[in-house]
Amino acid sequence: MNEQLSNLEKTIAYKFKDKALLETALTHRSMGHGNNERLEYLGDAALGFIITDSIFEKFPQATEGELTRLRASLVKGETLARLGRDLGLGDYIKLGPGERKSGGWRRDSILANTFEAIIGAIYLDADMEVCRKCVISLYQKLLSEASPDTLSKDPKTALQELLQSRRLDLPVYSVLSERGDAHDRLFNVECTIIEPDISVQAEGRSKRLAEQLAAEKALLELEKKHNKIQ
Amino acid sequence: MNEQLSNLEKTIAYKFKDKALLETALTHRSMGHGNNERLEYLGDAALGFIITDSIFEKFPQATEGELTRLRASLVKGETLARLGRDLGLGDYIKLGPGERKSGGWRRDSILANTFEAIIGAIYLDADMEVCRKCVISLYQKLLSEASPDTLSKDPKTALQELLQSRRLDLPVYSVLSERGDAHDRLFNVECTIIEPDISVQAEGRSKRLAEQLAAEKALLELEKKHNKIQ
Repeated sequence: MNEQLSNLEKTIAYKFKDKALLETALTHRSMGHGNNERLEYLGDAALGFIITDSIFEKFPQATEGELTRLRASLVKGETLARLGRDLGLGDYIKLGPGERKSGGWRRDSILANTFEAIIGAIYLDADMEVCRKCVISLYQKLLSEASPDTLSKDPKTALQELLQSRRLDLPVYSVLSERGDAHDRLFNVECTIIEPDISVQAEGRSKRLAEQLAAEKALLELEKKHNKIQ
Repeated sequence: MNEQLSNLEKTIAYKFKDKALLETALTHRSMGHGNNERLEYLGDAALGFIITDSIFEKFPQATEGELTRLRASLVKGETLARLGRDLGLGDYIKLGPGERKSGGWRRDSILANTFEAIIGAIYLDADMEVCRKCVISLYQKLLSEASPDTLSKDPKTALQELLQSRRLDLPVYSVLSERGDAHDRLFNVECTIIEPDISVQAEGRSKRLAEQLAAEKALLELEKKHNKIQ
C-alpha cells in the first residue's frame, strides 16, 4: 500500500507528511467511518478559492459573469472527474464491497469527490500556498486553455450555470407548438424562469436548437434585469 | 472622503496600503466602470474558503452535511447584510443617482455584496493570512455562537440550503387537501423534489407547519438517498 501511495504522491507532485491524511482522502463513504467526506468539503472550498483567485488575476478585464461561468466550467463535476481519472485515482480509491461490485470506482462522482478530498488533504497537511501550487500544477493545461472568449458556446449550459451561481431556480423549457412537414419542422419553445420572472420564446428547426435560442434570449434578459436590480 | 475611509478602516481593523482598492470595493455597479463586482466575486470565494476552513477545524466531529448547513447560514445574504450594516457600510457605499433615489443603500443585497467586496479587497491588498484574520475578527460573535446543534430548527430552510449546496432544483410544496372546520383545519401538504426523485406528504394544523413537517421528511429521504448513491 505504501509503495502505491508514493506512486500517487509522485503523480500529484506532493509528498504528504501525514500519510493518514492521504489515506483518508482516498476512502469512500461506503467504507464507513474515517471516510473522505469532510476532506472533500474542505477541498471543494479551497479549490473554489484557488481557481477564482487564479482567473481573477489572469483575466483582469473579465466581468463577474464571465468569471462565474469560467469557474463553473473549471470546477464542475465532469472536469474534476477527468482530472481524477488522469491521475489514475480509480486505482487508489478504497470502496466498500457493495460499491466495488457495482463498478463504483469508475463513477464520475466518486472520482470528482476524491479529487477534491485530495486537495483538502494537501491543504491540511501543508498550507494554502503549497495547496495552491499543487492545484495550479494539476490545472496547468485547463488554465492555459481557459478564456472567457471560448465560453458561451452553449447558451443552455451558460444559463443554467449562471442561475446556479446565483442560487436561483433552474429554467423550464416547454414546446409551445410544432409546425411544418416532418422533414421541415419548426419548433416554438418557451423558456421560463421564476425568479427573476422571465419568459421568452424562440423558434428553431429542432427542439434542441429552439431551446438554445430561447436560452440565449433568457440570458440577455437576465443580464438586463440584473443590471437594473443591483 | 479620506477621513471617512480611515474611519471605516478603523471599524474593520485593517489599513489599506492601496486606498483605491477600498474605494473600488465601496463602488456599486450603478456607478458604472470601476465598480466592486469583480472584488465581490473574489471576496465571495475567499470568504467561503475561510469560513469552511474555520468550521472544519472547530467542529472535528461534524458531518459534511452539518458543515454545509452551518456554512450556508454563515455566508447567506442575510448574514452578510447584517455584518455590513453593523460596519455601517451604508454610509460609505457609492451609488449612482438612480439607486440613491430609491434608497438603494439600505437594500440587503447591496450591503451583502459590498461586504464581500471588502473581503476581496483586503485579500488583494494583503494576502490570505491577513484576510483570514480580518474575517475571523468580523465573524467573531457569529463563529462563537455557531454550532451544528443549533441548526435544523427550520427544516424548510435546511432543505433549501442543502439542495442549493448540491446545485439541485428547489423543492415544490403543494397543498393536496384541507379538511376540518375553520378553527380546526388540517392541511395535507406534499413536498416534491425532482432530482433525486423524492415525494413526501405531511399533515399539519397550518399550511406552514405541514410544509415544515414535509420538509423534515424530505431531508431524511435525501440523506438516505445520498448515502446510497455516493
